[in-house]
Amino acid sequence: MPELRRDPVVGRWMILDDHSKGPLDFSKDDNTPTHQAICPFCPGREHQTPQEVDAVRPVNSLANTPGWLVRTVPNKFPVLSSDGSLQKEGYGIYDQMTGIGAHEVLIEGPEHDKNLTEFTSEEMQAVISQYQNRFRHLSKDRRFKYVMIFKNYGSSAGATVEHTHSQIIALPMVPKTVLEELKGAEHYHQYRGRCVFCDMISQEYQDKERIVVENTSFLAFCPYAPRYAFETWIIPKGHSADFSNADESTQAHLAQILQDVLKRVKKVLGNPSYNYYLHTAPIGYGNMACYHWHIEIIPKLTRSVGFEWGTGLHIVPTFPQDAARYLREASS
Amino acid sequence: MPELRRDPVVGRWMILDDHSKGPLDFSKDDNTPTHQAICPFCPGREHQTPQEVDAVRPVNSLANTPGWLVRTVPNKFPVLSSDGSLQKEGYGIYDQMTGIGAHEVLIEGPEHDKNLTEFTSEEMQAVISQYQNRFRHLSKDRRFKYVMIFKNYGSSAGATVEHTHSQIIALPMVPKTVLEELKGAEHYHQYRGRCVFCDMISQEYQDKERIVVENTSFLAFCPYAPRYAFETWIIPKGHSADFSNADESTQAHLAQILQDVLKRVKKVLGNPSYNYYLHTAPIGYGNMACYHWHIEIIPKLTRSVGFEWGTGLHIVPTFPQDAARYLREASS
Repeated sequence: MPELRRDPVVGRWMILDDHSKGPLDFSKDDNTPTHQAICPFCPGREHQTPQEVDAVRPVNSLANTPGWLVRTVPNKFPVLSSDGSLQKEGYGIYDQMTGIGAHEVLIEGPEHDKNLTEFTSEEMQAVISQYQNRFRHLSKDRRFKYVMIFKNYGSSAGATVEHTHSQIIALPMVPKTVLEELKGAEHYHQYRGRCVFCDMISQEYQDKERIVVENTSFLAFCPYAPRYAFETWIIPKGHSADFSNADESTQAHLAQILQDVLKRVKKVLGNPSYNYYLHTAPIGYGNMACYHWHIEIIPKLTRSVGFEWGTGLHIVPTFPQDAARYLREASS
Repeated sequence: MPELRRDPVVGRWMILDDHSKGPLDFSKDDNTPTHQAICPFCPGREHQTPQEVDAVRPVNSLANTPGWLVRTVPNKFPVLSSDGSLQKEGYGIYDQMTGIGAHEVLIEGPEHDKNLTEFTSEEMQAVISQYQNRFRHLSKDRRFKYVMIFKNYGSSAGATVEHTHSQIIALPMVPKTVLEELKGAEHYHQYRGRCVFCDMISQEYQDKERIVVENTSFLAFCPYAPRYAFETWIIPKGHSADFSNADESTQAHLAQILQDVLKRVKKVLGNPSYNYYLHTAPIGYGNMACYHWHIEIIPKLTRSVGFEWGTGLHIVPTFPQDAARYLREASS
């Protein structure tokens, strides 16, 4: 018998298929790196990207020259424009705004063939630290309401450049999925006086079966009502709404667990394409009592089917407790 | 400069890329039919499907024998189970239900190689009539809250059998996308006392540029704030919340305009994969003042990118007025 489950935050129902698929039941991409010859993200080709806006690099080394550990540049093909003012206007019954925003590429490391699972802990921490730097910097721009940090790994997940990188988009509004989480979390908090994410963490510790791994500051688990097979969340154990407040040791713990989970995903699923993105409180909302920042990791294992796009009803072929068991039992 | 637009019903913002892509700028599937040897939907192989639940067939012809024009059977691999009672229960802080529902396949015609664009008007009307028959039949089951009628055409759109068919899923809850439309439409109606979809129709007639085609009862247009390139809606011109009330002449007009739009999509985009689905009032809601049933047609032209799944923010590469112009100018 299939099972219907409801996401406790946004209230979305999903269908769990009764034949729970294992890691070998999916056809996946092979994301082995292939070529380096013309990569604009490699050291020595800094002039092929727009001028860098930030970097982790040795003191006194020059911007836009080699030597960097992490390098952030504006996206050469931005989806939103960073120049101009935000103009809102009506168009008959419709609403529109000028497409103002920022779209940056965060090149995670200098080596073309090295992905996050192969980074040293120092390199991983430099990535997380750069995430926060860019987040804080973009948050100061009064035109922006939200900063979305995300990573597409592998062509099926939308990556168009092979060299390891993340993307950052600053938006003049809070995007739909985050708004839904905020509304659901507020509703829950009004009703019960508690953070729904904190309650989820308690529940996960009680049930145990969906936990993948934990460290001092973070829990990684497969959510009870996922949208995708092997979907995994990383969440701070203590209540915290705002990623931009994470201190240095928290960042180090995040770097550790994020890499640990990605290694497990790679080991169990064979280097699949994946996406992850960071959900945090919108700019200026501070440490809200009802919200809780987290990272959602989504291995790209199934094709998107029209039914799911059209209904918002996801059909998930792997039970989260099974996915978690595979990931838990894989030594990273 | 890119443009941000808000969907007037659900409030979703989307980004319009400033380089509007034409029909030739997408790489598409070739959906030319290839084989017929083992198709379980072809006449003479009725025993290879579950027993038919409904059909348009000559009077006195036997069920599960050839001669039918349209034939509906339970899906051999249903995502929900039609046997059993609906049990709801809590699981700690989480909610679940037994996976009760119906999942049917509506085989649109007997000929393996013939798709909807090649149907006669009588054949097209038989499909629409069968949609309504199944809708009405499934609506009588007290376990169900919603009946979703949809079609996946082509492998990229999720079709696993080539022989032309639609699917029907009866659900024990209203799916997320419909619920969002209902909430948005109720909100608009409370505020303005009018149906937001009726207002959209007026606006479309005023602007003209997004209209694809119309007939006596229906308007086809590319919505102002689409989620996908060449997304096209078909909507009754007069207020009507409930598809199950559409009378015979309305059904004939729907058959005509649906086929017309699909022919234009095929002509302009070269037989691409597509999805369409019917959004109507949930079972028992009747002819709501705030809601308006419609069909959304989504050619599958772009790959789903992680960013869109993660944020709910769609980046659309073709302006709706451009898509509408291409479709309008293609003689069907």
